[in-house]
Amino acid sequence: MNRTELVNQIKRKQNFLCVGLDTDIEKIPAHLRNEENPVLAFNKAIIDATKDYCVSYKINTAFYEADGVAGWETMKQTLDYIPKDIFTIADAKRGDIGNTSDRYAQAFFKAMSFDSVTLAPYMGTDSLSPFFAYENKWGIVLALTSNPGSADFEQQQVGDKKLYESVIDTFSGMASPAQLMFVVGATKPQELGEIRKRVPDYFFLVPGVGAQGGSLVDVAQHGMNKDCGLLINASRSIIYAGNGVDFAEKAADEAKLMADEMATLLKQYQVI
Amino acid sequence: MNRTELVNQIKRKQNFLCVGLDTDIEKIPAHLRNEENPVLAFNKAIIDATKDYCVSYKINTAFYEADGVAGWETMKQTLDYIPKDIFTIADAKRGDIGNTSDRYAQAFFKAMSFDSVTLAPYMGTDSLSPFFAYENKWGIVLALTSNPGSADFEQQQVGDKKLYESVIDTFSGMASPAQLMFVVGATKPQELGEIRKRVPDYFFLVPGVGAQGGSLVDVAQHGMNKDCGLLINASRSIIYAGNGVDFAEKAADEAKLMADEMATLLKQYQVI
Repeated sequence: MNRTELVNQIKRKQNFLCVGLDTDIEKIPAHLRNEENPVLAFNKAIIDATKDYCVSYKINTAFYEADGVAGWETMKQTLDYIPKDIFTIADAKRGDIGNTSDRYAQAFFKAMSFDSVTLAPYMGTDSLSPFFAYENKWGIVLALTSNPGSADFEQQQVGDKKLYESVIDTFSGMASPAQLMFVVGATKPQELGEIRKRVPDYFFLVPGVGAQGGSLVDVAQHGMNKDCGLLINASRSIIYAGNGVDFAEKAADEAKLMADEMATLLKQYQVI
Repeated sequence: MNRTELVNQIKRKQNFLCVGLDTDIEKIPAHLRNEENPVLAFNKAIIDATKDYCVSYKINTAFYEADGVAGWETMKQTLDYIPKDIFTIADAKRGDIGNTSDRYAQAFFKAMSFDSVTLAPYMGTDSLSPFFAYENKWGIVLALTSNPGSADFEQQQVGDKKLYESVIDTFSGMASPAQLMFVVGATKPQELGEIRKRVPDYFFLVPGVGAQGGSLVDVAQHGMNKDCGLLINASRSIIYAGNGVDFAEKAADEAKLMADEMATLLKQYQVI
């Protein structure tokens, strides 16, 4: 998916919600446990229920890999079930030397047909460049994450800037806003505002709204640009909104609530 | 595998070689292409040929994920084929927020039964702590890698030390030499020596000997400790040593050459 299509989708659906499919078999409703593939049945129901209220799905690869080979099969089946006009993210946080990253890019962009993959920047630019060699595919580089451990390295001072600022400057120097996004946590709205000034045109994938306590209003205030420029992820707060036979309805209600709030914000900041 | 077993294996086999199974279907001998699973057939032949000359196998997950679900199946079959007394490494460079890393640990330590997994430190200590909750399993944290991009962030000055030194200090403060190793590239022997002084007792997984140009003698001189403390990885230089019907013999010859050189070094530095 290219940038224009993504922005148009946001404007048409009037939201910038990414639903995170971090599906844990121990948390899905009991009545699904007898399905042949309970996780897939759950994901399909969640996708059916929420697809009108989001512009993106993020599949957290860890939750599928935890089930080994069968989990990878479920991941692929889930991806294939997502409507083609919705932006898909492999939340995989990959990154390695060039000839290896080239294989990861193949894995997520060819063997599976994700629009994007999240990337870990530690090993530097040559470790991620293979992900930017695909047309209309995206690399989403970790910048400032929402967990406490972001203080350990990301927020450390490197010369005249923080490490995450150095990551942003370095990667924005090598890839355009049409192929690169950054992960910026919702729990740090002030820093989000500073990062927005640093890279006005790039999209941010923003985790941390919902279960982790970040505020949608704060994120929009500090992070939105003229094209919206935000994909806000919510996982647990949506997909586990209910735990009964009406779990999908509950998920839809929660997604719609967030989408409605997002519509208001998109209007407030004159994106639509 | 625990630390004593690993050290004993090194002393018994008189080498500290890790063979990297970065198997690329396009590089394996033509006569294997008609096998039902050419990559698995290749890996089995390489393992049979080299298992007496190494103490570890490293499976680079990217090369398997590039083939999607089938690749994960091949990865598991390859792992299951490795003799149980040989130390296995999932070279996966994972790392995410805690509840996600917990799933990655499940993936590599339970769904598959690797002894260890390589980890990316960018997101900080809480992002990797789940990997250290398993008895006799290891996390191998990226410190100083062998690629040019290590200059971008790893070698940057953070306060009074380099970022990779901060990574080493931080993680060695939370996990013992019985469950934590560091990745340190062979292409930087001087820095390897400094790192050895910093953490005398930890094992280092050392890529970059062979195809990437690092020297075995230099690595041993600067990095060896009383228990050896090194696993030196060679991938392409061993597994692609030959490309004909005798590819496995050629791989064995190359592995034996390295193992013999390692025996000399182990004696020279009085490990055996």
